[in-house]
Amino acid sequence: MMHFLSQMAFCSCRPNAVLLRPQPNRWASSSKSKDDSEVGHCTRVQRNVNMEGLRTGYLFPEIFKRESEHMQKKAHARLIRLGIGDTTLPIPDIITSAMAEHAYALSTIQGYKGYGAEQGNMDLRKAIAEKFYKDMGVEGHEIFVSDGAQSDISRLQGYTDSSVIVGQAGKLEEESGKYGNIVYMNCGSENGFFPDLSTTPRTDIIFFCSPNNPTGNAASRQQLQQLVDFARINGSIIVYDSAYAAFISDESPRSIFEIPGAKEVAIEISSFSKFAGFTGVRLGWTVVPEELLYSNRFPVIKDYNRIVCTCFNGASNIAQAGGLACLSEDGYKAVTNVVNYYKENAKILVEAFASLGLKVYGGKNAPYIWVHFPGLSSWDVFNEILEKTDVVTVPGRGFGPGGEGYIRVSAFGHRENILEASMRLKKLFFLA
Amino acid sequence: MMHFLSQMAFCSCRPNAVLLRPQPNRWASSSKSKDDSEVGHCTRVQRNVNMEGLRTGYLFPEIFKRESEHMQKKAHARLIRLGIGDTTLPIPDIITSAMAEHAYALSTIQGYKGYGAEQGNMDLRKAIAEKFYKDMGVEGHEIFVSDGAQSDISRLQGYTDSSVIVGQAGKLEEESGKYGNIVYMNCGSENGFFPDLSTTPRTDIIFFCSPNNPTGNAASRQQLQQLVDFARINGSIIVYDSAYAAFISDESPRSIFEIPGAKEVAIEISSFSKFAGFTGVRLGWTVVPEELLYSNRFPVIKDYNRIVCTCFNGASNIAQAGGLACLSEDGYKAVTNVVNYYKENAKILVEAFASLGLKVYGGKNAPYIWVHFPGLSSWDVFNEILEKTDVVTVPGRGFGPGGEGYIRVSAFGHRENILEASMRLKKLFFLA
Repeated sequence: MMHFLSQMAFCSCRPNAVLLRPQPNRWASSSKSKDDSEVGHCTRVQRNVNMEGLRTGYLFPEIFKRESEHMQKKAHARLIRLGIGDTTLPIPDIITSAMAEHAYALSTIQGYKGYGAEQGNMDLRKAIAEKFYKDMGVEGHEIFVSDGAQSDISRLQGYTDSSVIVGQAGKLEEESGKYGNIVYMNCGSENGFFPDLSTTPRTDIIFFCSPNNPTGNAASRQQLQQLVDFARINGSIIVYDSAYAAFISDESPRSIFEIPGAKEVAIEISSFSKFAGFTGVRLGWTVVPEELLYSNRFPVIKDYNRIVCTCFNGASNIAQAGGLACLSEDGYKAVTNVVNYYKENAKILVEAFASLGLKVYGGKNAPYIWVHFPGLSSWDVFNEILEKTDVVTVPGRGFGPGGEGYIRVSAFGHRENILEASMRLKKLFFLA
Repeated sequence: MMHFLSQMAFCSCRPNAVLLRPQPNRWASSSKSKDDSEVGHCTRVQRNVNMEGLRTGYLFPEIFKRESEHMQKKAHARLIRLGIGDTTLPIPDIITSAMAEHAYALSTIQGYKGYGAEQGNMDLRKAIAEKFYKDMGVEGHEIFVSDGAQSDISRLQGYTDSSVIVGQAGKLEEESGKYGNIVYMNCGSENGFFPDLSTTPRTDIIFFCSPNNPTGNAASRQQLQQLVDFARINGSIIVYDSAYAAFISDESPRSIFEIPGAKEVAIEISSFSKFAGFTGVRLGWTVVPEELLYSNRFPVIKDYNRIVCTCFNGASNIAQAGGLACLSEDGYKAVTNVVNYYKENAKILVEAFASLGLKVYGGKNAPYIWVHFPGLSSWDVFNEILEKTDVVTVPGRGFGPGGEGYIRVSAFGHRENILEASMRLKKLFFLA
C-alpha cells in the first residue's frame, strides 16, 4: 500500500518538489550559513522500528562462513554445493537465441521498443494462460508478468489492509523464533506436510507454497480442496506459490486453480526461474482472477493492476522474449528436458539417503530432498556432512523451528557432482 | 517496511504455511462440506482504505482518449506524438551486441549464470561509480543496481518510518488536487523553479527531481547547495531523482553528490532508461552513501541493502551486460550521440515555440520543453494544438495544479517528425 504514495509523491512528473510530514524548519531562522558542517552529521529521520525488529537473514551467510572455514582447513577438498537452490544447467539455445534476436532488433528502427505494458506483453500473458491454465478459465488479462516471484511477493503486500502488514507481525519471540501475531501452520512429516485445519485460526491471508521449499512435498488434490474450502468458509485469500510446479511427477495439482472454487479465493505466484533456468534472467508471473473480491465486492485485480502500474515498469522486454520462447512447442520440450535432468538428480540423491535407512521426503515433485535425522541437531548434521564429505547442504533449522532434525539437499547441479556426492555420502554413513 | 514481512512470512523457505492475523475459524465448526459454493463468493478481506482514497492516474489515458477521438474525426491525419516521454531511437549496436552475447553465453556451461547479487554485478556497480561519481567519493558498494527507477522508488519507501507512508498522505482535497499531509513545494517559473526554503516546513523526506520532469529545468549549483544546507540543518533526507542528468548541457550539477555535504543527507536515484534508451530493457541504480545515518546513527545503507536483498533478486543479467557496455568508452560515445540527437530535437522545438513569442522553458538540460500560455487552460491549449496540427502534447495541469497554463512537449522522436511538428506549430500560431 505504500507504493501509491510514492507515486503520488513524486512520480517524476510534478512541477513541484514534494515533502512528506511537514514540521517547522530550522533553516529559516538559522544564519543560512553552513553552520552544520560538523563531521559525522546524522539526520533526524528515525529508523523504521520494524527494521529494528527484523531478524537477520543469517542462514546462507552462516552456511557460506562455515564453508569458507572448512576450505581453509582442507584447501584441496573438492567441495560440492547442494545448498542454495540455484539452477546450474545452461538455458537451451532456442530460448537464448530468441533473447539475442530481440536484443539485436532493439538496434533497428523497426524493432526498437520503449516502454512496454506494465503487466507484460499480451502475447506472453496469453501464452502463459494457455500453457499453464488451460481448462481452468484463467485468461491472459488475469496474468501479470513480473521480473520474478520475489518482486511480486513484495508488490502483493500492497493490496492487503495496511494494518496487516506494518508492524503487525508482532514481536519476535527469541526462543521460538516466531513472530507473535503470525500463525505458523505446522506442515511436517508427522501430518503429511499439511496443517490440521480444524485447529487453525482464521486469517485474512494464507501463504501456501506447493511444491514446498524446503520439504519438497506437493500437496495432494484432496488437501488443496480442503484448503480452498477452508478459505471460502472463512473468507480468506490464499497466496499460492507454485514456483516449483514444473517438477511435479505425480497427480498432484500444478496450480491451485485446478481446484473448483479456487478462483474466488486465490492468487497464484509463479516463475520462470526454476522452470527454465531464469534465476539470473528474471521473469515470473502472478495470476489474480477476476472472481476474487474484497469484502465490499470490489475486484482485487483492479487494485493489483493499479499497484503494478504504479510501482513497476514491466519486466525486461528481452527476458519476456525468452519467456515466450520457453512456451513454444520446441522451447517447452527443451526446458522440460532440463527439468527432467534435475529430477533424475533428485532421484539419485533420494536413493543414496534412503539406502542408508534414513527417512527421505521430497525429490519426487520438487528439486529438494528433505532428510530426517530424528533427535539430531540439523546444524550438527550439516557440520558432519561438510567435514566428512565436503558436501554443502542446508540445515533444516535455518528454515524455521519446524525444520530441526532435517537437512535440505538441492538437486540442482551437474550430474557428475551429484553422483560423486552420493558416493561420498554412502561411504560416510557406511563407515559411521 | 512491508517487504521484510513478506519475506519473513513465506520467503519460499519455511517448512510451514503461514497466516497473518489469527481469528476464530468457521471451518472447524462447519460441516466441512462445500457449503459455500454460492456463485459470486466474496472474501472477508477488507480493501485497503488507502487504495480507495487513491486518485486515478487519469492523465495519459485521458490524452489517449482524446487522441483516439481526434483520429476518428480525422482518419487521414498524420499524428505526431510528443506526449509520453518514451525513447524512440534504436539502441546502438555495441550495446545490444553485448546483451545478445550475454544471452548466447547463458546456453554454455561456462557462461551460464544463475542468481546474481541482489545489488547488481560489482563490475557494473564500479563502472557506474567511476563514470558518474568520479571525484565525489561514491564507491561501487554504495551503488544498488535496479530494474529501473520506478521500482527503486517503491523500494525506497521501505526504509522510512512506516507512519510517514501508510495513510499519512492525508485526505485528497478535491478542489486543489492536493493531499492534506504533503507539502508541495512550489517550483514554477515565477521562482526560478526552486522553492523559497525560508517558508518551507521541515519534513523527513524531500523528493527532488533535477533535471525536472515536466519543466525541463535543472537546478543550479547554488540552488542545490541551498537544498543540501536546508536538509542538513533540518536533519532531512533528500531523495534526488537524476534520471535526466545525461541531458544537462550547462554547468548545472549532474548529481547531488557534486554538492559538498550531500553524502550525509541524500540518496540519488537514476536510470539507463532515458540515457541509453533502456525504457523497455529496464535498468537503473540508486546511490545510498555510507555517510547517511538515521537519527540513532544507524547507517541507512544497511537497511536499504536489507530491503533490496529481501524484496528483489537483482536486475536481469542480460540488461546488466547492456549497462556495462553503455559505460565502455565506445558505448558511452554511442549513447551520448543518441542523447545529443534528442537534444537537437529539443532545440528545434524550443526555437519553434520561441519564434512565436511564447515563453519557453526547459529543452536545454532535459528532453522536455515547458511552454507557457499565460491565462489559458492547459487542456484547452492541448486540444487546440491537437485539432489544428495533429500534434499530441501534454497539458501541464495533468502534472498537478502548478502546471496550469503550460504544456509539456517531449523531444523524443524521429527528426523528420520533430521538424514537421515545428512547421505545423509555427503555421498554426502564424495564422492565429
